[in-house]
Amino acid sequence: MEKRIRNAALAKKVTSAHEAASYIAHGMTVGFSGFTGSGYPKAVPIALAELIQATHAKGEQFKIRALTGASTGPELDGVLAKANGLSYRSPFNTDPTCRNHINSGEIDFLDIGLGQVAQYAEQGVLGEIDVAVIEVSAINEDGTLVPSSSIGNNKTWLEHAKKVIIEVSHWQSIDLNGIHDVYYGYDLPPSRGPIPLTKPHDLIGKPYLECDPSKIIAVVEANQPDRNAPFKAPDNDAKQIAGYILDFLTHEVKKGRLPPSLLPLQSGVGNVANAVLTGMLDAPFEQMTAYTEVIQDGMLDLLDSGKLTVASATAFSLSPEAADRINDNMAKYRGRLILRPQDISNHVGLIRNLGCIAMNSLIECDIFGSVNSTHVMGSRMMNGIGGSGDFSRNAYISIFVTPSTAKDGKISSIVPHASHVDHMTQDNDVLVTEQGLADLRGLSPRQRARAIIANCVHPDYRPLLEDYYERALKSSYGLQSPLILNEALSFHQRFVETGSMLPS
Amino acid sequence: MEKRIRNAALAKKVTSAHEAASYIAHGMTVGFSGFTGSGYPKAVPIALAELIQATHAKGEQFKIRALTGASTGPELDGVLAKANGLSYRSPFNTDPTCRNHINSGEIDFLDIGLGQVAQYAEQGVLGEIDVAVIEVSAINEDGTLVPSSSIGNNKTWLEHAKKVIIEVSHWQSIDLNGIHDVYYGYDLPPSRGPIPLTKPHDLIGKPYLECDPSKIIAVVEANQPDRNAPFKAPDNDAKQIAGYILDFLTHEVKKGRLPPSLLPLQSGVGNVANAVLTGMLDAPFEQMTAYTEVIQDGMLDLLDSGKLTVASATAFSLSPEAADRINDNMAKYRGRLILRPQDISNHVGLIRNLGCIAMNSLIECDIFGSVNSTHVMGSRMMNGIGGSGDFSRNAYISIFVTPSTAKDGKISSIVPHASHVDHMTQDNDVLVTEQGLADLRGLSPRQRARAIIANCVHPDYRPLLEDYYERALKSSYGLQSPLILNEALSFHQRFVETGSMLPS
Repeated sequence: MEKRIRNAALAKKVTSAHEAASYIAHGMTVGFSGFTGSGYPKAVPIALAELIQATHAKGEQFKIRALTGASTGPELDGVLAKANGLSYRSPFNTDPTCRNHINSGEIDFLDIGLGQVAQYAEQGVLGEIDVAVIEVSAINEDGTLVPSSSIGNNKTWLEHAKKVIIEVSHWQSIDLNGIHDVYYGYDLPPSRGPIPLTKPHDLIGKPYLECDPSKIIAVVEANQPDRNAPFKAPDNDAKQIAGYILDFLTHEVKKGRLPPSLLPLQSGVGNVANAVLTGMLDAPFEQMTAYTEVIQDGMLDLLDSGKLTVASATAFSLSPEAADRINDNMAKYRGRLILRPQDISNHVGLIRNLGCIAMNSLIECDIFGSVNSTHVMGSRMMNGIGGSGDFSRNAYISIFVTPSTAKDGKISSIVPHASHVDHMTQDNDVLVTEQGLADLRGLSPRQRARAIIANCVHPDYRPLLEDYYERALKSSYGLQSPLILNEALSFHQRFVETGSMLPS
Repeated sequence: MEKRIRNAALAKKVTSAHEAASYIAHGMTVGFSGFTGSGYPKAVPIALAELIQATHAKGEQFKIRALTGASTGPELDGVLAKANGLSYRSPFNTDPTCRNHINSGEIDFLDIGLGQVAQYAEQGVLGEIDVAVIEVSAINEDGTLVPSSSIGNNKTWLEHAKKVIIEVSHWQSIDLNGIHDVYYGYDLPPSRGPIPLTKPHDLIGKPYLECDPSKIIAVVEANQPDRNAPFKAPDNDAKQIAGYILDFLTHEVKKGRLPPSLLPLQSGVGNVANAVLTGMLDAPFEQMTAYTEVIQDGMLDLLDSGKLTVASATAFSLSPEAADRINDNMAKYRGRLILRPQDISNHVGLIRNLGCIAMNSLIECDIFGSVNSTHVMGSRMMNGIGGSGDFSRNAYISIFVTPSTAKDGKISSIVPHASHVDHMTQDNDVLVTEQGLADLRGLSPRQRARAIIANCVHPDYRPLLEDYYERALKSSYGLQSPLILNEALSFHQRFVETGSMLPS
């Protein structure tokens, strides 16, 4: 087995996860690595959760404020939430226990656009970062750090934390070295120049993370795998949605509005996204690129096929099978898979300049296209906005996808009025459900409503929305975006009362 | 009087406004110059409105689709709306007649972030641009065009319109030459490099607009002034709001979170904005800069005082007195006043990199900070989102300002739930009313609600919102952003029914 801790001074700091965790105290703000289930520390948070539980058993308080790249896994968000060890969490979470604690009011959760977290932290508004706990795949002889399967906000945590704990993962591929591109030219204003990236394959930084060695208080060795969720084969809805998107893109190329290689793809995580990527294997696009947040199974297949020349992101988000495949062959992906800090992968200016084609999912959308991607029934947090705001606002074409219904048809994904809004109507260019696609670009709100109701709504809900909209046209205070105030949230009210948005 | 039309070939195309207007036909899409009452054509639209009325009198249809930079004036939006000559309008409007037609459903109005209009148009999704009608201050010997008091989308209209009508304004200062910086390096993707602007005073383009002379079908001379609204002295609310903002910025400088020269200022138009700028005359900030959308009276005063070293924008938005003052002295402002195309003044990446301090107004905001800046009672269009989305999302600090009530106290600017959302909660860092300032950075939604209700709400409405929020904490579906679905829009419903949001 190749040696992972190659720096002599840091090798002397190797210690147990429990000792490392003991440096973390009640009230501290901790910056953890981790993004969509990859690259998060596993040993130290488990030890920390045990310490928290033991402290609670003594009748003492112990809660921390946890910052990460994005979501992590059961060994971090899960165990810390179960131990009632979190008072504050940002910027994103998918862990079920943590989600329950957020929605019961026990954890203050700050949901922020993932491209903005680093700036927020560097500004100081997330509080001082007491400790950083960062998973790496190796420590170089000179003390620089080879990141693991995500970069996320690691550069920021390492620079701004007062103390640093390094977790060296023996599970991660030793060949990750060379996959990363850490840009060190993006300081706080007023000293920021343009970021010199013009193509997704541009390398503009260093293949490692830097860290002041005097801040490193512990090095821990670990061997747990990333939380890589099993790949679910696309269902019929996902295939239909993918089909509409591929037809749309083909049409745009024919019209000359997109080049034959398309523009850099961004794709949210999930079943539909993977179906689109899978569909692209047979689509007439060549020499494609991706400038996105996470690299999923579908993107790996596209790379292997040669249809995709490069995928730039901040993290992997793979099935266990795909993770094995990539870990066994990491070296051959160098230059074609690039992981960057999330303030670069999700930088608004780069996304705008590159002209990404963004594909993101939503919880609900109203008849004008305003998108709720975070709050079920307007109040219950699902995961967070993630990178969807960074990409949808700045994309060349922003596509939102959703099955037209959820919960066996008891929820319509399209409602009279979104119960919460993360993406304004203007950020939603193209809406796609398994019912069809509505190209909303250039349309006024009334034109959008007609297109969405006609093309995207499930037949069970179409008459309800048609009726609502026709009555809104007669009674609304203004007709720019017709609205019946005391019926706007009636679908949600009915669901909360009866368990279905359909009238009984 | 200095000659304004210096190109011989174009001098031959000088004609009447009526003849020029006759090149515009029913169904056409016309790209007009104009941004916040400055730099819009005045003679041709008036002649066009007469032509439209005459055509209607004959029982024939005549409506056009009108695109601009932003708002214009009575000689454009006003006369065309009064003549029932508009079928579609984008991206922004402040004209009362046009607004009425939008809200009665006669005009399809597409409200878009002003920094995105050019890309939308160039993508082709606003339809083909049949004719551009562009006000300029002069035509150079080589046929290049000296813009007038705004640039807006003129570069885009000139490049993409099939035919061009130039309106040469004799009212505009002849010394505008050298005030403009038209960047010609920003093409459609995939051929976009980084924009080489790192400071607000950087000049990266040409001081003129280019236009294929073969497309120019008419040159019209005109002499009407811009629509420059009289300056209203700040009222008490505005002064109080300005005071809170200046205290906040001073505090941030003391904490080391902002440099003593602050960061480039962006300021929306209006009374409060001007009060802040006026207050800065006596504030302890020196060597300030502005990277903004429009240059108002207050900014001119700051420039004259030496406190502000440069103001970069896309348009002037001045009182008649300030317009006279600047027009008489334009040459001395060269290098310190810079007008750019609006896709550069409002470019998301530049705003993010420069780290602007954004100050924008709103119509209403909910207790979590979601902002409605466009739709009165959720349905009636006021003006449009303008540049507030470009700036607030990407600012270093995004400040929203509003008096806590409107309509003599009958409307609370802070409501349980915004009836429309243009800016998600995360785009709102600091909320300021005459009641106080809430620093929302880093806070979870529940923490934000406490801060907003305590600091910003008018005392007449505070008990109502406190009561609502406490009950929401008990009954909400989820507690991330507590919500009572069937009371969420009750303030609005009460206003529509009784004329006041206060219970009788």
